[in-house]
Amino acid sequence: SQTFQLAVIPGDGIGPEVTAEALKVLEAVAGDEAKFEPTRYDLGAERYLATGEVLPDSVLEEIRGHDAILLGAVGGKPGDPNLPPGILERGLLLKLRFELDHYVNLRPSRIYPGATSPLANPGDVDFVVVREGTEGPYVGNGGTVRAGTPAEIATEVSINTAFGVERVVRDAFARAQKRPRKKLTLVHKTNVLVHAGQVWSRLVAEVGREYADVTVDYLHVDAATIFLATDPARFDVIVTDNLFGDILTDLAAAVTGGIGLAASGNVNPDRTAPSMFEPVHGSAPDIAGQQKADPTAAILSAALLLEHLGLDAKARAVEQAVVDELAARVTGGEDGTTGRSTPLRTAEIGDAVAARLT
Amino acid sequence: SQTFQLAVIPGDGIGPEVTAEALKVLEAVAGDEAKFEPTRYDLGAERYLATGEVLPDSVLEEIRGHDAILLGAVGGKPGDPNLPPGILERGLLLKLRFELDHYVNLRPSRIYPGATSPLANPGDVDFVVVREGTEGPYVGNGGTVRAGTPAEIATEVSINTAFGVERVVRDAFARAQKRPRKKLTLVHKTNVLVHAGQVWSRLVAEVGREYADVTVDYLHVDAATIFLATDPARFDVIVTDNLFGDILTDLAAAVTGGIGLAASGNVNPDRTAPSMFEPVHGSAPDIAGQQKADPTAAILSAALLLEHLGLDAKARAVEQAVVDELAARVTGGEDGTTGRSTPLRTAEIGDAVAARLT
Ligand SMILES: CC(C)[C@H](C(=O)O)[C@@H](O)C(=O)O
Ligand SMILES: CC(C)[C@H](C(=O)O)[C@@H](O)C(=O)O
Repeated sequence: SQTFQLAVIPGDGIGPEVTAEALKVLEAVAGDEAKFEPTRYDLGAERYLATGEVLPDSVLEEIRGHDAILLGAVGGKPGDPNLPPGILERGLLLKLRFELDHYVNLRPSRIYPGATSPLANPGDVDFVVVREGTEGPYVGNGGTVRAGTPAEIATEVSINTAFGVERVVRDAFARAQKRPRKKLTLVHKTNVLVHAGQVWSRLVAEVGREYADVTVDYLHVDAATIFLATDPARFDVIVTDNLFGDILTDLAAAVTGGIGLAASGNVNPDRTAPSMFEPVHGSAPDIAGQQKADPTAAILSAALLLEHLGLDAKARAVEQAVVDELAARVTGGEDGTTGRSTPLRTAEIGDAVAARLT
Repeated sequence: SQTFQLAVIPGDGIGPEVTAEALKVLEAVAGDEAKFEPTRYDLGAERYLATGEVLPDSVLEEIRGHDAILLGAVGGKPGDPNLPPGILERGLLLKLRFELDHYVNLRPSRIYPGATSPLANPGDVDFVVVREGTEGPYVGNGGTVRAGTPAEIATEVSINTAFGVERVVRDAFARAQKRPRKKLTLVHKTNVLVHAGQVWSRLVAEVGREYADVTVDYLHVDAATIFLATDPARFDVIVTDNLFGDILTDLAAAVTGGIGLAASGNVNPDRTAPSMFEPVHGSAPDIAGQQKADPTAAILSAALLLEHLGLDAKARAVEQAVVDELAARVTGGEDGTTGRSTPLRTAEIGDAVAARLT
């Protein structure tokens, strides 16, 4: 039996609740072949507000020693004057993504049973966004001159390297080739961001020559949002910049029936550091501690973690258990009842998925 | 009777067809009180491919002398190797917006009669995006080092000044105050783009103090796309950065039933140069010259032009004629017939709207 060291960052708000369910499901699917040893790291808004610490170097180094990271959600109350925007995002979440070289930010989208898409006719949606995770406008370059005055100038610098773009493009092509439709769509804004756009276009064309069986197309980011709203089923694999990927994946979660189901992996494909798995949703402080959060996105993120650790069968089992559980909730129990008058509590959903795995 | 000099740039693809209908409608609504004198400027992909010219300085200076600009659409065949991405966008469209200081890029969204939203329950949508038009990542700053090599680095620099942000924020507050709901939503990504985000947040807070009756809220751009897909009716006035505005307005056009209806104004509120009105859609070369394009977005852009010229009653008349015409197409003619077996041709739509105005 293999043992995996997991760094667990439950975080803030609903983070701890959904993480508990993801761990419950990992425990259930482990069986005799795998053992997960979680170490909890207390990071996020609460720690920052209490101690001023965001991510101490010593903690980052400890986390580095693990096989994978499971993260709930971080973030305090919106508008909290003691928690300026960016402190946790730049200092914790993005710091982990950048320090651990999570250059593939993987965000699959499909319509799960019972999910209610806001679209009248969403069609058969099953695509994955491969979002670049270590460059673009997320690098934190830029600054402010004459802050707070009428003559203030603030810049944000997007960095795009052939090195950084090529590696994520290669990953996306490899994924596209393994999928039935073998289709890759580059999303960018090459007609306005011409410098960055040229690097992306060139490398998609160059790497594409090695993947003759993958069909490639291109959409401007604005046009891509139109298609996500009108015909999301057309997409197979999307490869895109860090910021465009952020925007497209929230929209993708919305059109497929909700952020409560959207999972993500911050993957370091070279395995020089642990990869990190987290739901796309935030910490939702307004419903925290009430067992109202849907842990499905966290559970599906745990499935991505299993896949990354090479436990493919277990990953598929978790995803299937989630699908079966969602389907059962739609069609009702064995006694023929359909629907429920009260929504399931967070732990009930975790219990139900775990029960299908043991 | 007032005479207005219009610079008309029909452009490429379906541009000339839809512009012809917008001019037809302006002619029809002019009556005795106004006279429009159009001067055509032959600019766009065709001219560039034939002559290498994009926007000669002398032409820009001539255009400057007009009261307003009506633009169809510019852009050649996608992927045309003779027309690298950005040439026309940076050299013509954005050049006009920047040179003529179109700092308010105005994009209203509502669901017109008969428009089919892809959303199952779009609700009662009526909002306007006030997109900044002269700063942000659109400035064209940035560049490439070691182009085309494995060591290539490309940057894009987003410029955000208190000067530029304050003026568009003021415009947005003034618009919000005139609307029944008096609500302003700032959309940005202040948790990641912290430098730019601070300028936007600060100025919305500061200017907001002068507009105590306007309710202000904030959404990250990713969250804003979720709400556009799930509850677009919640929005009233959105103020945002150039790039986020580009993305949000295409999505807004999609969820309200199509880019064929989305109008826009590139407005210089200080009137130091002519403002420019154009449909949000592109040149659609695939259907050009076939009378298949819907000129409604161009006609509604002409209504924005009328409003900008102070011809408010005429602006409202054109919008009403469009609404009546769209509604008539839904409910059918006086003989009780509903629907049509063949779609209307471009000129038929223009004729029908014009007929309602004379
Ligand atoms: C919280 C924020 C920094 C983050 C991002 O922008 O990447 C989030 O929106 C996400 O998509 O994971
Ligand atoms: C064509 C392009 C430069 C333009 C933009 O990005 O502003 C277009 O998408 C728009 O929205 O008017």
